[in-house]
Amino acid sequence: MPLPDPFLHALQSIFGDDVHTGMAERLAYAYDNSRLNAQPDAVVFPTEHTQVEALVCACRQYRIPLVARGRGSNTTGATVPVEGGVVASFERMNRILRIDPANRLAVVEPGVINGDLQRALAPHGLFWPPDPSSSPWCSIGGNLACNAAGPRAVKYGTPRENTLGLRAVAGTGEGFRCGTFTSKGATGYDLTRLLIGSEGTLALVTEATLKLTPRPSAIRTLRATYRDVGTAAQAVARIMGQPVTPCALEFIDETALKLAHAHAGNDVPLAGALLMIEVDGEPDTLDAAVHAVSAAARGEGLESLHVATTTEEAQKLWAARKALSPAQRTIAPDKINEDVVVPVSRLPELVLGIRQLAAEHDVLVVTFGHAGNGNLHVNLLPRDAAERERAQACLAAVFARVIELGGTLSGEHGIGRAKREFMPLALQPATLHLMREVKRAFDPDGILNPGKLLP
Amino acid sequence: MPLPDPFLHALQSIFGDDVHTGMAERLAYAYDNSRLNAQPDAVVFPTEHTQVEALVCACRQYRIPLVARGRGSNTTGATVPVEGGVVASFERMNRILRIDPANRLAVVEPGVINGDLQRALAPHGLFWPPDPSSSPWCSIGGNLACNAAGPRAVKYGTPRENTLGLRAVAGTGEGFRCGTFTSKGATGYDLTRLLIGSEGTLALVTEATLKLTPRPSAIRTLRATYRDVGTAAQAVARIMGQPVTPCALEFIDETALKLAHAHAGNDVPLAGALLMIEVDGEPDTLDAAVHAVSAAARGEGLESLHVATTTEEAQKLWAARKALSPAQRTIAPDKINEDVVVPVSRLPELVLGIRQLAAEHDVLVVTFGHAGNGNLHVNLLPRDAAERERAQACLAAVFARVIELGGTLSGEHGIGRAKREFMPLALQPATLHLMREVKRAFDPDGILNPGKLLP
Repeated sequence: MPLPDPFLHALQSIFGDDVHTGMAERLAYAYDNSRLNAQPDAVVFPTEHTQVEALVCACRQYRIPLVARGRGSNTTGATVPVEGGVVASFERMNRILRIDPANRLAVVEPGVINGDLQRALAPHGLFWPPDPSSSPWCSIGGNLACNAAGPRAVKYGTPRENTLGLRAVAGTGEGFRCGTFTSKGATGYDLTRLLIGSEGTLALVTEATLKLTPRPSAIRTLRATYRDVGTAAQAVARIMGQPVTPCALEFIDETALKLAHAHAGNDVPLAGALLMIEVDGEPDTLDAAVHAVSAAARGEGLESLHVATTTEEAQKLWAARKALSPAQRTIAPDKINEDVVVPVSRLPELVLGIRQLAAEHDVLVVTFGHAGNGNLHVNLLPRDAAERERAQACLAAVFARVIELGGTLSGEHGIGRAKREFMPLALQPATLHLMREVKRAFDPDGILNPGKLLP
Repeated sequence: MPLPDPFLHALQSIFGDDVHTGMAERLAYAYDNSRLNAQPDAVVFPTEHTQVEALVCACRQYRIPLVARGRGSNTTGATVPVEGGVVASFERMNRILRIDPANRLAVVEPGVINGDLQRALAPHGLFWPPDPSSSPWCSIGGNLACNAAGPRAVKYGTPRENTLGLRAVAGTGEGFRCGTFTSKGATGYDLTRLLIGSEGTLALVTEATLKLTPRPSAIRTLRATYRDVGTAAQAVARIMGQPVTPCALEFIDETALKLAHAHAGNDVPLAGALLMIEVDGEPDTLDAAVHAVSAAARGEGLESLHVATTTEEAQKLWAARKALSPAQRTIAPDKINEDVVVPVSRLPELVLGIRQLAAEHDVLVVTFGHAGNGNLHVNLLPRDAAERERAQACLAAVFARVIELGGTLSGEHGIGRAKREFMPLALQPATLHLMREVKRAFDPDGILNPGKLLP
């Protein structure tokens, strides 16, 4: 259904000639890092808050779906315009408005690239903790929309722990500010955290005030290999059960190691499972920290434990983790990439459970990820149509197992289109009902990113 | 207006004989640590989640106001039943349901006393960071309702950063769970943080899953005195501008020191202003930490800098801070206790601005508090009726100044009854409108804690 002419005129009055309805742009903004694909009817590139207000008002007036988009690096279809309408790409609204080292905060527009912000903060001795592996090309707005994190979250938290305030436009078309420029606040409801992780279904973020953290001056990298996934998972629980919290605690299973080894060669060890561990802090504290996490890493099943002594050696230790994504792509372009999370003590049961389910359903599954948070990437790698079908059944069984273990569907990818039908597994009807009511409060006409997050 | 008989019968069917409508209980639950006072029509003591569901349903059916109460230690009137109705005191729903060191979490009922929880956690080497000065008698439920923090928040955060999930009953009468038992989650809207700080206006919390932190094994205490409040505030900004974050950074002004000195004697130094600084961590890291914060504390206006070498000496250094509350009570039982917050770099302007306003309005004002968060307790101490009137005008001017400086009305006390009329100073009409819509989503009939938080 083409967009009504008066609506297109409204868009032109906001964006001038910069309203794109041609096939090239519609194709370019039809997909994200999921396998989903649906063309928008128009693409616009806001650069100012007031444009976003006018855009939402116009979409509301004509009941046109509106999908906010960062750089489309999400894996759940959260930015695919499944009901058509307008894609608002924030890639040109990308100024770092203020870096305020004295108050440990930065004010940024949503299109700022995560990696660009980190580079701008480095001279001030500060960083913003969320570090998805897509940080060189993903945007802060997208990080906030999905509550996207990365390895450092185990010590430094996710966007919800590292954002002070937002400026945004609700589905009503009303612009508003929420949160504070201070590190503490108890002035009314926490709308800031409510928007973080809401995947563009409540409001479009136009500015964010981020909480910054002093960069630790030193870091140490350790690599431990284990006989099997069970003993490695037990080591994770031991490491997280002692006081020194690592700044990364990554897990890689045997199948993933084999793939990475085939792809990247002998820098990648073959083992039942591997842990990458990093600790950071002031230089004179690191010996004690390495000692503490090493002691916890030791135990049944440990086969090797290396501590890097140089930066080059540390990079070599990371070789396995870095080779994983390209290695998987070579064998299964249609990989299903999940990011379930369970309490850390239940990790051994989860990894063994996933093994059993992979065997039962005869699907190639690799698991790796942010084990310190109990957050595992469960990648199903179907190599043909029949395996793809079995993979869907296996996935449903994995989710059910995760919920049994006290976990939840997503640790950092969000729900998007891919997982919304599984939401009733994780959330009670009453909780879903309240979420729908909150959606209605912000977006009474349901124009913002329809068909996402809520089943 | 007495409660309707069928409603009283409904209460009796839930709580048996334990429904209190006598004058003794109505008086005992009429007030909190504000000066406000309003009698409820009935007081009940839930002990089970299902009772709370039935209670909210009954209140909703008969449109009876319902006020959840912890131990009434809040200072804003948040638990005073200004429209009558039922007070639900959670003091008997006080079991620690689970301490799970492996997953660094505890599951508690809302009536658990903060200090009791800390004592139960200590043998596990863990603590829950929020530490209001009322921790020996305030409840976790109250801490969550107000997002109440304390000195440690400067390093370890507030309840919003230290709570994983909740069980609660919305104003609809529906029970629900939100959040996770994991340290990461991106499964739908963050209702957990939305409830924290909502002062019982959205839902009644019946269970909380708290995120625990390993206890640092050592601590060091420093005390610095300054020529005047301006130079002390500048030192605060310097301390927070360097990488070693103290676990307490408290400020006391000259007037407060004089009061404390008169009350507690020579352990309390006389000076233009005083900072209490604590750093924590592993024992072998503390020399470096003390060195870093000492270097930042030094500068214009510094008159003395003491580092405690024994526990007794540290306790002596804290004497001034501890003597403050009793000292103030002796001269002004009607003290007005605020907790405004500004970006740390604006603290010098705030403390000097408050000085000017105190002089202009001829009101005795003392300032002290959690300076590392920019969170100052501004206590107005009127000694007679005329000064009380001037104090109200002075307070409004203080709030206006705080907002000008990029701050907000409350850092940890919340809004309650006392500050709700000032909310439009801090929040845009669009933000307040969204908060009202969120309120409607959770509590469509407006029965939960009416007359609080939202103007």
